[in-house]
Formats: sequence, C-alpha cells, structure tokens
Amino acid sequence: MRTLEEIRARIDEIDAQLLPLFLDRLECSREVAEAKIAQGLPVLNAAREKQILDEVERKAGSRGGEARLLYDAILTSSRALQHRMMDGGRDLRALIENAPSKDLPHDRIACQGVPGAYSHEAALLLYPGCRPHFYKTWEDIFRAIRDGKEDLGILPVENSSAGSVSDVYGLILKYRFSIVGAATLRIRHCLAVPEGIDLSQVKKVYSHPQGLAQCSEYTEAHGLTPVPCSNTAAAAKAVAEGGEPAAAICSEQAAKEYGLHIVAHGIQNSSANRTRFVAISRTLFIPEDAEKISLCFSLPHTTGSLNGVLSQFAAAGLNLTKIESRPISSADGENFEYDFYLDFAGNIRSGDTLNLIASLQSELPRFSFLGNYTELD
Amino acid sequence: MRTLEEIRARIDEIDAQLLPLFLDRLECSREVAEAKIAQGLPVLNAAREKQILDEVERKAGSRGGEARLLYDAILTSSRALQHRMMDGGRDLRALIENAPSKDLPHDRIACQGVPGAYSHEAALLLYPGCRPHFYKTWEDIFRAIRDGKEDLGILPVENSSAGSVSDVYGLILKYRFSIVGAATLRIRHCLAVPEGIDLSQVKKVYSHPQGLAQCSEYTEAHGLTPVPCSNTAAAAKAVAEGGEPAAAICSEQAAKEYGLHIVAHGIQNSSANRTRFVAISRTLFIPEDAEKISLCFSLPHTTGSLNGVLSQFAAAGLNLTKIESRPISSADGENFEYDFYLDFAGNIRSGDTLNLIASLQSELPRFSFLGNYTELD
Repeated sequence: MRTLEEIRARIDEIDAQLLPLFLDRLECSREVAEAKIAQGLPVLNAAREKQILDEVERKAGSRGGEARLLYDAILTSSRALQHRMMDGGRDLRALIENAPSKDLPHDRIACQGVPGAYSHEAALLLYPGCRPHFYKTWEDIFRAIRDGKEDLGILPVENSSAGSVSDVYGLILKYRFSIVGAATLRIRHCLAVPEGIDLSQVKKVYSHPQGLAQCSEYTEAHGLTPVPCSNTAAAAKAVAEGGEPAAAICSEQAAKEYGLHIVAHGIQNSSANRTRFVAISRTLFIPEDAEKISLCFSLPHTTGSLNGVLSQFAAAGLNLTKIESRPISSADGENFEYDFYLDFAGNIRSGDTLNLIASLQSELPRFSFLGNYTELD
Repeated sequence: MRTLEEIRARIDEIDAQLLPLFLDRLECSREVAEAKIAQGLPVLNAAREKQILDEVERKAGSRGGEARLLYDAILTSSRALQHRMMDGGRDLRALIENAPSKDLPHDRIACQGVPGAYSHEAALLLYPGCRPHFYKTWEDIFRAIRDGKEDLGILPVENSSAGSVSDVYGLILKYRFSIVGAATLRIRHCLAVPEGIDLSQVKKVYSHPQGLAQCSEYTEAHGLTPVPCSNTAAAAKAVAEGGEPAAAICSEQAAKEYGLHIVAHGIQNSSANRTRFVAISRTLFIPEDAEKISLCFSLPHTTGSLNGVLSQFAAAGLNLTKIESRPISSADGENFEYDFYLDFAGNIRSGDTLNLIASLQSELPRFSFLGNYTELD
C-alpha cells in the first residue's frame, strides 16, 4: 500500500499531464470548427457526441458513470467554443449591444387591480411618486403597452408563500416584452375600519382568501368571521362603502385610498411573506448597473442536459439565484418537455457573459433572453 | 493547417491517454480515502478542492473557465466515491431498506376543504372508492395524521397556471412526513345550477377567484356577474342553499354533492389546467414499482454547486423531471440561501440510486429524502 505522500505525488503527476491534454483537445475542437466553417460544413454533431459518451462509458467499465460525467464536461466546453466561433446568436448580440441604458420612459405605468393593490405599492417602490393606471387583467396591461398606451407594467412573478411561476412569464414570452426592473415587496397586511368605528363593534373581516389565510391567527384571536373578496383593495372598498361596522385586511395604501382607519399593522401570521414584482417594457432596456439576468429556455427531457447548460454558467462565474422548471405539453399532447426559468447575478455587458448568452441562444430550443436589470430587495 | 483527418487522429490519441489518467486519478482518490479512514483522519477537504480549482484555472490562462469546469467534474466524482466509502447516510440507508412496500394503510384519508373540492376528486383518483374526511386547513391534516387519527392526506403541490412550490412542502418537512403517491388532475370546471332553474334566469355566478378567472371567457360571453367565494365547493353549497337563481363554477363532484344540475362541462379558458396532488403519510412506504423520487436540500449560494449535485444524478442516469429553488432567510436575516425541490424518475431500490442518495445525505446541508412513489398522470 502506498503512503499518503506517494499517492499525492502520483495525483500531481497525473494533473500535470491531464490539463495539457485537455487544452490540446480544446484546440483540436477549435481547429475542427475552423476547417468545417471554411468548407461550409455543419459544425455540430450531436450523434457523434453521443457516440463518444457511450464509448467512454463502456471503456471505463464500473466507472462508466464517472467517465461519462468527465466527457460531458469536455464536450460542453468544446461545443460552447464552437458556438462562439460560429458567431452564434448574432441577432440577439446586436439587440443587446444596441439596447439603451439611460432614460427609460416611465411616465405611464400600468398595474392590475384597483388603487391600493400591492402592485400599486410595488410601482411606488420602483418608480417613486408615480401615478399608475389600473387594468382589470394582466393581459390588458400587455395589450395597452403593445398599443403604445402605456410605457411600463408592474406585475407579480413570485410569492414566498404561494410560490411561482405565474402566467406572467407566459405573457412576457407571448408579447416578446422585456423585464426592465424588479423589486421584492414585504407584504404587510393591516386591519382597517371605517372612521368612527371601534374594533369591538366589528364582527366580519373582508379580504382576498389568501389575505384571510395569511392573517388567520389574528382574526381567530379576535373572533372575526372571514368574508372572501376578489382582492384586498376591493375588500377595503367594500368596507368603506358598506355602511356597516366591518374590517378589511389590506395594504396601508389601500386603507389610505378608501379613507379607512388602520387599527393594527403587520397582522400576518408569518413575517417573511414577500412578493416579487417585475417591471416590463415593450423594448429592451439595460441600465449600466444591471445586476440580474433572466432567461427562459426549453430542454428535451433527457438526462444531464440541464447539467450541461448550468455547467457553462458555472464556468463563466455566474451565480444562479433562481431556477424553476415548468412542464409544457408537446404538440402531440403525449410527451412532456420542460421550460426552465432562470435568474443569474450578472451584467451582460461585462466579461464573457454576452458570448455565453449568444452561444446558448443558438444552441437551445426556445431560448429567450428576458432582460438584464437592477433589483430592489 | 492540419486536415480534418489529422486533427481527428490527434483527438483519438488524446482520448486514449486522457481516460486512463482520469481512472488512475479516481483510484488515487480511493486510496487516499482508504488511508485516511484507516488513520482516523477526516476524508473531505473543501479548502484543498478550492485550491486545486484555483490553480488549474490560473494555469489554463484564457481557458481558465473550461479548465475549472473539467476539474469540477473530476472532483465531484472523487467526492462521491469517498462518501460511499465512508458509509455516508447510513441511517437513511437503513430507513429506506426497511421501508414497507406492500399494504399501505389507506382506510382513513384526509382532504382539505369540503366534499366536492378538487382534492376530493384527487383522492378518488388515487384511492378509488375512498370516503375522505375533510379538514379546514392543510396543517389540520398533518396534525390529524401525526396524532394517528388519519392514515393519509391528499394535498395539492403544483398548479399549471398558478405554479408551485406551495407551503405543503414546508409542512411535509416540518412534520417529517413522506410522499407515498402522486396524481395529476386535469381541472375541468362545470357550470351548475339548482334543479328546475334555467340558465337564462341566472345573473350571478359563484366560485373561488381563481375558478372565476379560469372561466372568464365563458362567463363574459354569457353576461354572468362573478361573485367570489372561498372555494369552488363552497360556491356550489352557497348556490344550492341560496334560494335564488344563481350558478356555481365547480367540479362535477361538487355539483353532485350539493344536488346541483350541470348545464355545461369543461368551461375553463385553457384546456391545459392541471393540478398535481400528493398523498402523504407519517411513515415511509416505497412500493415495488416506485418510479418517482422527491428530494429537498439546501445549498449555500455559491457558483456551481447546484451543477455539482445535478452532475451526480446525470452520472447515475437519473432523469430530472422537476426542479425549483426557493429562497430561505438565513438565521441572521441578511443573507439568502436556497432550498431546492427536485423530482427524478427512478426507483431507489435499483442500481446505484441508493448509494447516490445516501452519499448526498452526508454531503448536503438540510438534505431530505421526501419519498419514492408511483405517479398517476
């Protein structure tokens, strides 16, 4: 049996050979791509890659899984290199390089719901002093922006207690809009009553079912009977106009909007309830200090392919901050494929990030660059 | 410039050297672990791994990212091998090996809501002919199972239009329960009215706000005014007991339950609306034909670590079918870490799967094996 020192010396020896071989192999891939491009031949060959993986797996015997993993990493690097040489994603590259970084129009801002809704608070957080217009549905906002009636829309995409991915992503893809900003709002519900009403007179409490559920400990302790409404701001309106002693669970903004008196702040069960909102625009806008990148792409449902994509982000030093898969029905309605929604910390104008995004654009089906923006926490 | 044939010959030469070097290096890692275990020394050394990665990145110059990716794959394989040798996750291994595979008790089944709720339909799909008991909240179900009053609970975890991760996962972790089955229900809303009432007499339609939103095209076309309720079954009950001509948007089961007459089936806007339900139990149960594995783990928010974990699943040939990240607040409330929820297609009793799960259990913080079960689609 070798001593620890002897084994370590052997590892150093191996590494001294392994790394140059790998770099030599990458150089060969580069030359292959160069020769093929010169001859007008297609560069990528998925069948050949599969053949290589199967062969190393077979040759490695009981270490087949590990060998496959090694070659998956090697082939991922070669493929990314070749995509860059093929000038992959040229259109996306031009779009990003020409995106404005200053003076985003934000005079006309659209929110869903009624004044006092939490999206109203999010709009004020993102664009202080703004006076949003309100629309009935999310899609109404997209239509208004498409038709040039609004500059930006503020929409929820994630909720710490109910999760995500909401249909908002589907609409962003459908209308080919961009995310130009994001903010996470701490949802603080308050209990509001009409002026002159004392809490002891109140028996009923109005709110959205989620608002009622989020404040169940408080309402049970005070013996209040919950009455569900379509949203928290509508609850405030109903209480303000109802003419009977009742309370609403709503935002401070909603209480103010409908002239209600706040009797208790922060009455939600959990203090950690947060909702993330994004600002969307018809055209791409990337501020100089952009720090978050959002992407969506589809992957055939096969082993290891997500891993191959994430490897490339890891190699570029980009931190993953969110990932979510969502099954989509294929055209035949039989097999499921997956859409992935990812956020990374990064600025697309720095380092190799643009090269990576452009290369993925040409490599992945249904790849969408959703935006690169600043995030308020 | 070399010809394509010359370059390919060189690649074959490189591969003939590269693979044996890699296998030799793995063998060295195995010997190091063996020697350390014999001497009672700690086997894993994260600082040494980081040093190796930094060094190869430096040595590879402009190909630093690619070199790092290569060594990340190499070190991942070594680490997994060492975990297996250290008999990692021994407790979990014993728990899984001793889990019953037959005769899951399912006499007493708990659902949230009221008879006719969609979870009632899911319970009937999973356990045909069952007669579930109904509880007010999700947590009430967990308490009843914990106290031995119920055998199983049926709870929603994903909705194709509203997304996931719901708090149900949080409760499964809190109570240390297991997932013992899953089914995806196609949500088909119907319009139901009291017997003897004609649709032309109806002005108002009752349902949960989500049910109303999902059927907005139908209700707008028929000029019906939406009235929000706390859930679809409560809407059916309200219409049945209301004594005025009104309609409910609810499940067929709910219409049946409250003696309503169905005037239209499948009135939702999108035909693809699905909700995934899981069956949960206090103890682990793994049927012979289990096909889906659910896991949850936490990762420090660093580049590449998710990639390292997914690599190991890829190497074991396990297909990822779902992934979701969820930010969790750290103890100091300042830095965010992430919980990941993953589903894989696989049976933990076959191949290297148990080895992999046991090794991850010892490697990852807050790792939870949530279950291995059959899935109805």
